Amino acid sequence: MTIYIKGLGLCTPGKPVSNAALAQRFALNEEWISLYLGNQSRYFATDLNSGVQHYSLMDIARQAAVSALDNAQLDKGKIDFIIMATATPDKLMPATVNEVAHDLELFNIPTYQLQSGCCGAMQALHLANDLLSNGHYRYGLVIGADICNKFIDPLKDYSDSAASEIINFALFGDGAGAVVLTSNADESPLAITNLQYRITENSLPPGQIVNWQGSRVQEIEMLREDYKAIENTVPQMAEEQMRRMLCMLDAVPDDIDWFLVPQLSGRMTAKITDFLQLPHEKTINCVAETGNNGNALLLFQLSYLLDAIQPGQRAVALTIESSRWLSGGLALHHCGVK
Amino acid sequence: MTIYIKGLGLCTPGKPVSNAALAQRFALNEEWISLYLGNQSRYFATDLNSGVQHYSLMDIARQAAVSALDNAQLDKGKIDFIIMATATPDKLMPATVNEVAHDLELFNIPTYQLQSGCCGAMQALHLANDLLSNGHYRYGLVIGADICNKFIDPLKDYSDSAASEIINFALFGDGAGAVVLTSNADESPLAITNLQYRITENSLPPGQIVNWQGSRVQEIEMLREDYKAIENTVPQMAEEQMRRMLCMLDAVPDDIDWFLVPQLSGRMTAKITDFLQLPHEKTINCVAETGNNGNALLLFQLSYLLDAIQPGQRAVALTIESSRWLSGGLALHHCGVK
Repeated sequence: MTIYIKGLGLCTPGKPVSNAALAQRFALNEEWISLYLGNQSRYFATDLNSGVQHYSLMDIARQAAVSALDNAQLDKGKIDFIIMATATPDKLMPATVNEVAHDLELFNIPTYQLQSGCCGAMQALHLANDLLSNGHYRYGLVIGADICNKFIDPLKDYSDSAASEIINFALFGDGAGAVVLTSNADESPLAITNLQYRITENSLPPGQIVNWQGSRVQEIEMLREDYKAIENTVPQMAEEQMRRMLCMLDAVPDDIDWFLVPQLSGRMTAKITDFLQLPHEKTINCVAETGNNGNALLLFQLSYLLDAIQPGQRAVALTIESSRWLSGGLALHHCGVK
Repeated sequence: MTIYIKGLGLCTPGKPVSNAALAQRFALNEEWISLYLGNQSRYFATDLNSGVQHYSLMDIARQAAVSALDNAQLDKGKIDFIIMATATPDKLMPATVNEVAHDLELFNIPTYQLQSGCCGAMQALHLANDLLSNGHYRYGLVIGADICNKFIDPLKDYSDSAASEIINFALFGDGAGAVVLTSNADESPLAITNLQYRITENSLPPGQIVNWQGSRVQEIEMLREDYKAIENTVPQMAEEQMRRMLCMLDAVPDDIDWFLVPQLSGRMTAKITDFLQLPHEKTINCVAETGNNGNALLLFQLSYLLDAIQPGQRAVALTIESSRWLSGGLALHHCGVK
């Protein structure tokens, strides 16, 4: 079924952290970050020097939700369900979605929190589409947000750390996005006409691992990224997902006005764009400014898209998650009169 | 919409741990556990003395899923989606649902993992009902599972610990349950006719907190349960949920043959049963044998129910989650010919 974006809101915590500031804190080379990763800035909820956490995941998710509701000009009491996607909840319980719902007094509705990564916002939109399709609900709130404060140790001297550990601070960032969706075509011209999300048959080991500890502190591997596997696999998976989207739309690439490709870093985004043989001026990228903020990133791309798209134009977005090789895509059509 | 239970499977790791064994390990009083909590046994994926983890969450969730598929006599290739509910994923990424899907080779379908607690299985069933209602899917696999190995420290001497810390080992346990659901009435007489799930307006602080740590180890509160608030609030919330279910069914308690009430401990279950003025012989309880295994527990109760229910009979199940005071209920009708 087609669903419609009635409002969208974003939140980034604090001020952008430049490559220069990052390089100083983590004994990285500023030029290397810029050249090798292609990222220029990112945001962190935690002060990198003092370790003080100025924003929780709930704080930024709530702020994005409030902005989305304002943008939608919708009374919050009309929201019929909330789906929040995150890899990094504030706590395991209560789920952060329920802290957001409680704080905004969004009561007596179903709330769901997905444990998810780079495909998380797509999963949440896919699920919202299925819920809005069955006729019981009219308005859904979808939130995607991540915060990496629990992996930043302010007291640690990173000068002896492996590059593979500190590279994450240059790649990732914190942020939250939210969208108000409706099944009612009369309320918005921004139509999500097609959605796909699946676990693929890819038999490679996980490309990304993020672990957690409880009260028992063990010597366990906390973070691992197989950048080689990611660099080799994500472009191919993006190509397959693009083929599926074009097939569903019965379209060729020239029929599409805007492309939102997977955003691992500024450089990887450019590489994937080239691999897909897409014109760079038709792609919507934000990772170079926001850092890879995981479950929020697709919603940041959609925000940039909504500023650019003209009535009658079409866009295709692709997300790939390397954790267990998940793949998703959506097609958006601006149904407004030209 | 009405959906149908086509198959159900359970998994408990290892052998039951008796009150005597637990009392010895954690310097608890065996009689006190029995009298005060009313629990007789529970299961743990981790050996309490050595700390060796014999089963992961993936292991027990997969085993429950395989049993449910066997019980349903359904080829696994027919599953259209998987929803797994857990508070305690093996890792934050990959989501455990995707490890299960990968291991069972359940590919090219949407997979979702809910971050949830005592209402988790109800949330997953509610979501599955909405997905099966829209006509795109025929078979869904729902899994509820929890494992508390990350909160058991084998090297710790608990003899000086606060009762509020060690009481958890006597209350909780590990386990997994799974159900295969279908929208097709011809395939099973076990009909879930009504489902509710919501965040309530209850403004009390969270009754249960479960925290996690990343690579940064901090002095943070890892676990908190407000047993007083739980004891005061859960019976009332169960009563309200019961009223909503009976209203939906246009029924009085005498019309219902079986009741599945919230299961915090053997004693609390008895207390809630009395508060609701339900006859104990019409309630389905398992917590005294299994421990409170969180997201799995409702599926254990459903399994016990399916052994007891006769054609023509009706059951009502209630779940309350104290994290942020969530409430859910379902009604089941055995549509078989008497």
